[in-house]
Amino acid sequence: MKPLDALFEFLSIPSVSTDPARKEDVRRAALWLGGRLEALGFQVEVAETPGHPIVFAEKRVSDRAPTLLIYGHYDVQPPEPLELWETPPFVPTLKDGRIYARGASDDKGQLYAHVAAVEALGEALPVNVKFLVEGEEEIGSPHLPAYVWENRDRLRADAVLVSDGAMFAPHTPTLTYGLRGLVYLEVLLEGAARDLHSGVYGGAAPNPLQALAWMAARLKGEDHRVRIPGFYDRVRPVSQEEKALWPQVDEEAFKASVGLEALWGEEEYSLLERLWTRPTLDLNGAYGGFQGEGSKTVIPARAGFKFSMRLVPDQDPEEVAARAEDYLRSIAPLGIRVRVLRHGLGRPVLTDPQSLPMRLAAEALEEVWGRKPVYTREGGSIPIVAELVEALKAPVVLMGFGLNDDNLHAPNEKLDLVNFEKGIAASQAFLRRLSRLA
Amino acid sequence: MKPLDALFEFLSIPSVSTDPARKEDVRRAALWLGGRLEALGFQVEVAETPGHPIVFAEKRVSDRAPTLLIYGHYDVQPPEPLELWETPPFVPTLKDGRIYARGASDDKGQLYAHVAAVEALGEALPVNVKFLVEGEEEIGSPHLPAYVWENRDRLRADAVLVSDGAMFAPHTPTLTYGLRGLVYLEVLLEGAARDLHSGVYGGAAPNPLQALAWMAARLKGEDHRVRIPGFYDRVRPVSQEEKALWPQVDEEAFKASVGLEALWGEEEYSLLERLWTRPTLDLNGAYGGFQGEGSKTVIPARAGFKFSMRLVPDQDPEEVAARAEDYLRSIAPLGIRVRVLRHGLGRPVLTDPQSLPMRLAAEALEEVWGRKPVYTREGGSIPIVAELVEALKAPVVLMGFGLNDDNLHAPNEKLDLVNFEKGIAASQAFLRRLSRLA
Repeated sequence: MKPLDALFEFLSIPSVSTDPARKEDVRRAALWLGGRLEALGFQVEVAETPGHPIVFAEKRVSDRAPTLLIYGHYDVQPPEPLELWETPPFVPTLKDGRIYARGASDDKGQLYAHVAAVEALGEALPVNVKFLVEGEEEIGSPHLPAYVWENRDRLRADAVLVSDGAMFAPHTPTLTYGLRGLVYLEVLLEGAARDLHSGVYGGAAPNPLQALAWMAARLKGEDHRVRIPGFYDRVRPVSQEEKALWPQVDEEAFKASVGLEALWGEEEYSLLERLWTRPTLDLNGAYGGFQGEGSKTVIPARAGFKFSMRLVPDQDPEEVAARAEDYLRSIAPLGIRVRVLRHGLGRPVLTDPQSLPMRLAAEALEEVWGRKPVYTREGGSIPIVAELVEALKAPVVLMGFGLNDDNLHAPNEKLDLVNFEKGIAASQAFLRRLSRLA
Repeated sequence: MKPLDALFEFLSIPSVSTDPARKEDVRRAALWLGGRLEALGFQVEVAETPGHPIVFAEKRVSDRAPTLLIYGHYDVQPPEPLELWETPPFVPTLKDGRIYARGASDDKGQLYAHVAAVEALGEALPVNVKFLVEGEEEIGSPHLPAYVWENRDRLRADAVLVSDGAMFAPHTPTLTYGLRGLVYLEVLLEGAARDLHSGVYGGAAPNPLQALAWMAARLKGEDHRVRIPGFYDRVRPVSQEEKALWPQVDEEAFKASVGLEALWGEEEYSLLERLWTRPTLDLNGAYGGFQGEGSKTVIPARAGFKFSMRLVPDQDPEEVAARAEDYLRSIAPLGIRVRVLRHGLGRPVLTDPQSLPMRLAAEALEEVWGRKPVYTREGGSIPIVAELVEALKAPVVLMGFGLNDDNLHAPNEKLDLVNFEKGIAASQAFLRRLSRLA
């Protein structure tokens, strides 16, 4: 099957894992992928979980050949706000050399590049390949860690390949050796038993929206420091040697690329440090009271906000979540009931940029792009990577084909066609070299 | 027409003034009311404005008789959240002696009590009556002040009657001599040109939701003091004599009535002072980022919040709004564009509880309820009352038939049937006494 035709089929399935109404669509995406891999000679299992299914597939070429495990995810972020999409999010569209669709870059397009590479190699595939593809990455991979630990023997591999990231810049092949971890929480605030008239009760009734503001302002100060006690305790300093590996970054270009007038963050750290090696906290959503046009003089009974923290080595997500929960309860204003929900936890990752699989990956990238890769960390999180590293004790290679302007998690997500095609070629080049792992 | 049947017709028209989609329904309510008054012998004009129409109606019994101007509004608050209503908001329902519908208490039910009183008096009506009924009270009466000043001569009256308030407690006839003023603003915050991935950009990109929290926390401190410079400068102290007029209030009962675990507010002021004679600030709505179920790791491009300030004599809404706007701009974090919208301004009102019309009103209330009224201020605002007082130089009587548990601006708004019926009787008793004004 032509890679682009197959990818368009894959992208047209609205596998939004966070939306209960899309549960069947998520399953459909899993079955579609399983069917594709079966057609390529893989033994496929679509494993049920309490949430969305996990696709595990294996193709053995020889008992003596080394084994590569490729991780990816077939679920996507919600497409909202829909009115800002120029083409419908689940009608994949090729325009000006770009593939537009929710999931084009994160992660269906990148994942499918490896499927297409295996298909292209055909009988020439020199190594055993396993795919582990989940449907819950965008909701924090709640069920994959248990699956990984329970199926450790089946998953065993000589290297793990992850393509769920971005190149540092266009035409710049990139190997990533670090990911931030994640703690995603939601805070529910309740005041009166019902909405109140802000004239009749204003000045005496607790206001959950004001509590939201006070609490969120106490989570992160105007100096951009997270105020949760002990938050920075385990942050590992970064060596000068490591920083010397990093590419140059043009702050003005960075700002211009997404329309920023100024940068936020800790003044004593560089842009890349703020994004890669410093932990941070961002509000991701807030709600309460009247959101319509015009005015409504209400003190709402309820309000809430969602926020996430990005963690770096050696912060521990369980510990940070617990500290955050304790802190939130300690700063809850009188008369406001506070409940905290956990939406996802993930450990940070730091791997050796000079491992043998990383060196082979560097050769493969250079073969395809005609230049040596740059070495980066990433600000984002792939929670399962830390679990894979620990469970399988195998070196991990993070090789992304997306770009930072791919509009991940935003309207008009895209993947450049050239990166999809070079991704397929790079994956083949990597697979061919992998016999040297044996 | 039977008063309750007529009121049900009136209540079934969803005249939500803040909702552009309801514009025709708002007009329908104006025309319905005009038709009713015409049927009772009034000369009616439904006056166009750039917003919703104003209903003016006049019934002259004699050139020598005094004239009463009755103010009310036929528009209502939005009914959302709809799922919390036990009966549909625009299907008026009589249940357990209560009339349930949006607008039952605020203000269609109270207003219609006076229409029904005029109908009941018929030929015995001893005074000239004018009705001035607007359709924009719930959005801050943007067009009524100009109308009042331009039509000052037509509106001239010996007293102004306003029934858009509440009795202090059940079975407690109440005369109100003060209202708080209002400034309602909305703050729009913009960061990047598009939504950003909070992993990729977190730690360096401005976050409008965090800005919202910081700014709202700076508007009102955790000591419950409004931080806008000069906000309290013109607040008039309240005399011991005035406080001696006030009814007793049971704080525990107040809290229990709306399910509060604690009171907020300035510690050095009593509950009634906080509600009636102290200015305050409340967030009425906030929005931004992901509000659905689960998680989305986004730094939103935009966020916003709505808040209102309740003013007391001698605060000036224009001055307070300007100070608030200046302050908001001054505290906008770097990299966040701030725009402030004005949704409504209204001056506070303080009238003489011992004016002749107030004394006649007190007699009328005592006749119907069998007990003397209590004297109160109100925490809410009726922006137009200040304009009427100033333009017409007539004493105002604020006589409410609602109750504080009527769920104004909230789901399941109601008016007790007994208060609707006694309201009609009290209005008749007041109208009969008004000839003494001549």
